[in-house]
Amino acid sequence: MKNKITSLFNIKFPIVQGGMIWTSGWKLASAVSNNGGLGLIGAGSMHPDTFREHIQKCKEATNKSFGVNLPLMYPQIDELIKIIIEEKVKIVFTSAGNPKKYTDFFHQNDIKVAHVVPGVKFALKAQDAGVDAIVTEGFEAGGHNGRDETTTFCLIPMIKKEINVPVIAAGGIGSGKGMLAAMILGADGIQMGSRFAASKEGSSHINFKKEIVKAKDGATILTLKDVTPVRLIKNKFYKQITEAITDGATPEELKEILGRGRAKKGMFEGDLDEGELEIGQIAGLIDSIDPVSKIIDDIITEYKQALIDINIEKYNF
Amino acid sequence: MKNKITSLFNIKFPIVQGGMIWTSGWKLASAVSNNGGLGLIGAGSMHPDTFREHIQKCKEATNKSFGVNLPLMYPQIDELIKIIIEEKVKIVFTSAGNPKKYTDFFHQNDIKVAHVVPGVKFALKAQDAGVDAIVTEGFEAGGHNGRDETTTFCLIPMIKKEINVPVIAAGGIGSGKGMLAAMILGADGIQMGSRFAASKEGSSHINFKKEIVKAKDGATILTLKDVTPVRLIKNKFYKQITEAITDGATPEELKEILGRGRAKKGMFEGDLDEGELEIGQIAGLIDSIDPVSKIIDDIITEYKQALIDINIEKYNF
Repeated sequence: MKNKITSLFNIKFPIVQGGMIWTSGWKLASAVSNNGGLGLIGAGSMHPDTFREHIQKCKEATNKSFGVNLPLMYPQIDELIKIIIEEKVKIVFTSAGNPKKYTDFFHQNDIKVAHVVPGVKFALKAQDAGVDAIVTEGFEAGGHNGRDETTTFCLIPMIKKEINVPVIAAGGIGSGKGMLAAMILGADGIQMGSRFAASKEGSSHINFKKEIVKAKDGATILTLKDVTPVRLIKNKFYKQITEAITDGATPEELKEILGRGRAKKGMFEGDLDEGELEIGQIAGLIDSIDPVSKIIDDIITEYKQALIDINIEKYNF
Repeated sequence: MKNKITSLFNIKFPIVQGGMIWTSGWKLASAVSNNGGLGLIGAGSMHPDTFREHIQKCKEATNKSFGVNLPLMYPQIDELIKIIIEEKVKIVFTSAGNPKKYTDFFHQNDIKVAHVVPGVKFALKAQDAGVDAIVTEGFEAGGHNGRDETTTFCLIPMIKKEINVPVIAAGGIGSGKGMLAAMILGADGIQMGSRFAASKEGSSHINFKKEIVKAKDGATILTLKDVTPVRLIKNKFYKQITEAITDGATPEELKEILGRGRAKKGMFEGDLDEGELEIGQIAGLIDSIDPVSKIIDDIITEYKQALIDINIEKYNF
C-alpha cells in the first residue's frame, strides 16, 4: 500500500511537473526533482540538439529522478528516442500518439513509461501497451487536449474503475487541496502544469508568466476543436481564430492562420497579442510567480493541513 | 464549525437533490428528504397548477425539509412565487436569472434562498443579493450551464476564495468519494442531479433512465452555445443540431429546430431519438437505477469509508 507513484519513480512526493512546451527546460525539471517531485523536460518544443543539451544540463543539476515528455507525433521522434537511450534517461512520459509503438522498446532499455490520456478507451489501450502509469488529463488542462471534454472530476474515477496501473491526475490541480481531492477521486499522484509554468525556473517569457497570474475564471477556452483542440488564453490571437471559425474557415485555412511558431511567439517570446498562450483553467487561482521550492512546499503544507482538517465538524455531520 | 448546509436547511446529510425538469417531482423530492437529504421540486417543467399539486403531495409525503428549484426566467414566475408563499415552502433554489430581484422578498417570508452560479462574478452578485447559500455548477453538469466552461475542480476553490456564504458544489458528483473531494476543494455540501435522475422515484421516462445507465465517458456534450448552452446526450436529435450548426444556422433557426417540447419528448416521454436528453458527464459512472434510499446510503457509506481511507499509505508518503 505504499504510494505507487513515489515508489515507481523513486521520488519523495507524488507530484509530477508537466512537460510543457516552451516552459519545461532543465532548470524547471531539475528544480522540481531537487525539491522532491518528478521534473520532466518537455521535448515538444525542442530541436534534437537542444533536447540533448537540456538532458545533459539536468543531469548536472540534479542527482534525483527526472524524465522527459515526448509527444509521439514529433516529426523526428526517432532522433529524440536515440538521445533518450544514449543519455540514459530513465523515465519517459508519452502523449499524443499510440503508446503501443515504443513502450516495449523503452522497457527493454530499463525506462519507465507513463502515457497521457483524455478518456477511458485511450487508458485501456495504454494499459494494453504495458505502460507503468497513466496520466488522466481533464478538460480543464492547458494546451492540447481530447475531444470528449471529460473533466478531471469525472475522468479520474472513470479511468480508475477500468484500469489497474497507477493513475496520475492532471488538469485543474494547483494546490494541496486539489492534490488531496484528486487522490480521493482515485489518483495515486498528480501532474501539475500551469502552477509550474508560473514558476521562477520555468523557461517561458516573463510576460506570459504575468499573464497567468492576471488570468481569472473564464480567461481560457478549449478551441480549434476541428484542427487540434487546445486550451489557451482568450487573447487577440484567439479572437482572430474565433472570427475565422465564425466566418466558416476550413481546417486548412485555420492552420494557415495558426501558422508556425505561434506558441513560441506567445509563451517564449512574450508576445501576448499575436502569440498562442497555452494554460489551464486553474490559472485563475494562481496569484504569484514563485520559486519551485516554495510551490512544492506550499502544496505539501496545504495537503497535510487538509488531511488534518477532515476531523473538523464540516466533514463529520 | 458544524456543517453549514445541514444547519441551514435542518437536514441530516449535506446532500441536495438537483431540481431537474421532467425528473424532480414530489416523489423524488420527498424520497430524498425522507432519507436525510434535501429534496427539491423542479418548477421549470411544471404548469403552476401542477407545481402546486407537487408541493402539496410532497408535504403529505414528508415532514422533513424540502424545497423547490425556481428558474427565474420562467414566464409566469409571479404565479409560482405566489404558490410558494401560499403553500409555505421554506426553501427556494433559484437559477438562470438575477438573484437581486426576489431574495429580499423571500427572506421577508421566512424562506431560505440558494442561487445556482457557473462563475465567480455571478457568485459575488448572489452574495450581494443576500442569498443564504451558493450552488457552484461546473461545466460537467447536465442541462443548462454557463458560458465560461469552468469545471467543478476549478470552480469550487475559485468561488470559495471570493465569497463567505456556504457553498454547495454541483456538477460531476455522483459518489461518496466525489462528495468528499468536493468538500476538500471547499464545498460545504453537494448537489447531485444525474445520479438522482436515474433513481426509481425520478419522474422521467424509464427509457431515459436506462440511457443514463448506458452512457459512457464522452456520451454527453455541452452544445447550443450561441442559443443557451445545454449539456445533453449525443443522440439523433443532437446530431440534427450539430448539422444545422455546421451548415451555419442562425440562433433563430436553431431555436426552430429545437422547437417546443423537445426536453419533455426526450426525458418525460422517452423518445430517445427525437427528444432532448439532458444529463451530466457523471452519467458515465452510473450503473444502475436504484431507489433513493440506496443511493443516499451508498454515498454516505462510501464517503465515510473514504474518510477512513486517508490513513492508508497512499496518502501518507
